[in-house]
Amino acid sequence: MGRLTHFDEQGQARMVDVSEKQETERVAIAQGEIQTSAKTARLIAEGEIGKGDVLAVARLAGIMGAKRTADLIPLCHPLSLSSVSVDLTLDEQACMVRIEATCKLKGRTGVEMEALTAVNVAALTVYDMCKAVDRGMVIGNIRLVHKSGGKSGTYEVRE
Amino acid sequence: MGRLTHFDEQGQARMVDVSEKQETERVAIAQGEIQTSAKTARLIAEGEIGKGDVLAVARLAGIMGAKRTADLIPLCHPLSLSSVSVDLTLDEQACMVRIEATCKLKGRTGVEMEALTAVNVAALTVYDMCKAVDRGMVIGNIRLVHKSGGKSGTYEVRE
Amino acid sequence: MGRLTHFDEQGQARMVDVSEKQETERVAIAQGEIQTSAKTARLIAEGEIGKGDVLAVARLAGIMGAKRTADLIPLCHPLSLSSVSVDLTLDEQACMVRIEATCKLKGRTGVEMEALTAVNVAALTVYDMCKAVDRGMVIGNIRLVHKSGGKSGTYEVRE
Amino acid sequence: MGRLTHFDEQGQARMVDVSEKQETERVAIAQGEIQTSAKTARLIAEGEIGKGDVLAVARLAGIMGAKRTADLIPLCHPLSLSSVSVDLTLDEQACMVRIEATCKLKGRTGVEMEALTAVNVAALTVYDMCKAVDRGMVIGNIRLVHKSGGKSGTYEVRE
Amino acid sequence: MGRLTHFDEQGQARMVDVSEKQETERVAIAQGEIQTSAKTARLIAEGEIGKGDVLAVARLAGIMGAKRTADLIPLCHPLSLSSVSVDLTLDEQACMVRIEATCKLKGRTGVEMEALTAVNVAALTVYDMCKAVDRGMVIGNIRLVHKSGGKSGTYEVRE
Amino acid sequence: MGRLTHFDEQGQARMVDVSEKQETERVAIAQGEIQTSAKTARLIAEGEIGKGDVLAVARLAGIMGAKRTADLIPLCHPLSLSSVSVDLTLDEQACMVRIEATCKLKGRTGVEMEALTAVNVAALTVYDMCKAVDRGMVIGNIRLVHKSGGKSGTYEVRE
Repeated sequence: MGRLTHFDEQGQARMVDVSEKQETERVAIAQGEIQTSAKTARLIAEGEIGKGDVLAVARLAGIMGAKRTADLIPLCHPLSLSSVSVDLTLDEQACMVRIEATCKLKGRTGVEMEALTAVNVAALTVYDMCKAVDRGMVIGNIRLVHKSGGKSGTYEVRE
Repeated sequence: MGRLTHFDEQGQARMVDVSEKQETERVAIAQGEIQTSAKTARLIAEGEIGKGDVLAVARLAGIMGAKRTADLIPLCHPLSLSSVSVDLTLDEQACMVRIEATCKLKGRTGVEMEALTAVNVAALTVYDMCKAVDRGMVIGNIRLVHKSGGKSGTYEVRE
Repeated sequence: MGRLTHFDEQGQARMVDVSEKQETERVAIAQGEIQTSAKTARLIAEGEIGKGDVLAVARLAGIMGAKRTADLIPLCHPLSLSSVSVDLTLDEQACMVRIEATCKLKGRTGVEMEALTAVNVAALTVYDMCKAVDRGMVIGNIRLVHKSGGKSGTYEVRE
Repeated sequence: MGRLTHFDEQGQARMVDVSEKQETERVAIAQGEIQTSAKTARLIAEGEIGKGDVLAVARLAGIMGAKRTADLIPLCHPLSLSSVSVDLTLDEQACMVRIEATCKLKGRTGVEMEALTAVNVAALTVYDMCKAVDRGMVIGNIRLVHKSGGKSGTYEVRE
Repeated sequence: MGRLTHFDEQGQARMVDVSEKQETERVAIAQGEIQTSAKTARLIAEGEIGKGDVLAVARLAGIMGAKRTADLIPLCHPLSLSSVSVDLTLDEQACMVRIEATCKLKGRTGVEMEALTAVNVAALTVYDMCKAVDRGMVIGNIRLVHKSGGKSGTYEVRE
Repeated sequence: MGRLTHFDEQGQARMVDVSEKQETERVAIAQGEIQTSAKTARLIAEGEIGKGDVLAVARLAGIMGAKRTADLIPLCHPLSLSSVSVDLTLDEQACMVRIEATCKLKGRTGVEMEALTAVNVAALTVYDMCKAVDRGMVIGNIRLVHKSGGKSGTYEVRE
């Protein structure tokens, strides 16, 4: 049976040694969403076409958040990301903001956590900016949808 | 109709002025969860009773994450939190880790974002520690469940 | 003759003791500007009305930068800012972006450095976003234009 | 006409993908200055030869600031700088502190922003240390004077 | 018998709730030292009177380190320190640098950890600056020597 | 006679240029200890086997601290550590917690400071968690015990 690699034989947390891993091109894509009220969705939609663009603020926060991953997640390696992009799209019908983050690195370890962190921080920022009118928003469905590079090969979620 | 207070009349993002607000005791509680495979749930359960406690690491990460909220969320005020606690409980049957974070402050602005950030960072840390055996985990249902203190009164989600 | 208060009698740097100061409402306003080429000014102008809003990104960076002041400036006190706003306006004729930042605090020490840091970080961000088309931009005229609160009274620059 | 590379086709901010760029030796030099009153210039001069060396504190702050560039500038890549030096020289006659920062990196992206950030943080630190005696100081003329390495070749400002 | 207050009844780490504590003037003083070779002590002594002042760099690092305490120590409260000073003195005879840090706060929790962190970071900085000539330096005797303010009264180490 | 490489010919602090150094596998091991009262040692021991594991919290803090080294130590290079592990062992008889940290990097500069910082932060965290019952703890004997990789060869402390 598998073992959690972030612990040694004594069960002590550690940062996994990646010094023997190959430097390859690593890509990870994560997704998530935030469910809002109809009113909030309408306010966000208005901001997109006029004043007060919630999604633009959240996009930046997500990008900056990706760079803070190793500060936040105890056993993550500090990485020199070569690319981060974060897309937020409002589905006003469904009262939902969909978030997708893509991170790239030429390095020895994957960037899943960076992509997931970008999605989380972007979602939190949407929440922060809309919370004065809507406390009932729910952040969810945050998951890895693609990962490539490294020994373990490509991981792809089919929808 | 409501307006998003994080933008001024020109639609420009700003940190809301709270200098006229009262210093009151503020409390916020947020919850969330992470869905795992059966195998991952079992590994987490074993760690709790033996070696390699995933939930203890995630708890600490959540507490430390709450302290980084203003670094991550662009328009959040820097706050001197007076208390943070994060609880993670494994429901092995349901293959789910449930997370609840409580933040307190004697101050001029609420601590919802701190509680939500704690939950997000704790969930990301669970993901990080288990991802070598389970890439399909899904983080979700992250929401505010309680807020008290401040002008807007108490907010409570009934389950 | 005056003495630099950030040094003690031995000339050793220190963080000045403000524990005896009054908690008052403190406000500081700083300004600065960045000179660009005509082409860059036009690209910024296009972004404002269409795609790629340089000034919106710089505004956010300035706000977040104000919160990092005590991390950057060795002898600055960590502060719980109650408000930060940053305005950037393009004077396309003059090929100039003008920046103004306003910070507020109810506390024991002034917020000049926070306002100045916001202006600096906003200016650097404009530079970063335009540097691929214009390396000759010049950041300048960064100064305090207003300060109120605290024992030393109000300081106002008349233009 | 040029395009701002920090935005994609939809005008959304992103961290530019540098994973295909060559790892080369990158150097950037930035300069700036801070204008003071005669009295402040004299106090700084006294510190250099005696107690309370403003320029030494600002130099360190500039070096440390260069390391925080990716935390401050939203779309900057995190970099593993191989060298940072910051020089501050007082021109007491002209009541001016001149600042020059040099950054180096063996990597896939330039270090202009690191050099410019070092200059800005050093200038802010001079301001902070002298502001009790001189609120009218002005930071200015911050610009890139040299850049080498990378596809775009060497950039040099002739004075 | 005593209990470690940083754990709840289930043994889970938490940030202790200080919201009911009084806001009082808190002071803490910590000390420590670093033992060097005779050669290193001589080099440090030369720097003090001439070029390359190791102790001045370490002093600044200690002050800035105090401000990062809550980022480093998982269960420390974020605090708005009102004063930090760090003194380093070389005892060239004894080949020893002695460090003392004093922190103050008007707040609900003590500042022992801030003073101790300042000493640690200052000592590490001395090590960093001298390690090219002396890898055998030893940091030691780091302890709290004074604490006042708060319910538990004054603590004083007599030497 | 040796010279402190962190200063240039004018005695000005700088971050040493490592761009010409070889990328090699670098390893550093540091040790330290914290002396406690008998009561504190007993409480720590109980936590290990039951509730409230001080050493596990300190281990995580040490790992995260290693990643913050370049933020704390002014002239340290930012590094992409490939591995960090921190071991804490309680010697209840001797009333002592012994700490050992190992850091690895494939890079151009050594990781001594990262290992030493991990030990320091772990020790501070033990202090923080036990200080409510024991203010007299002393942190000491922090030193480098092994270093390999790089031009200067292997350094090993024999005990």
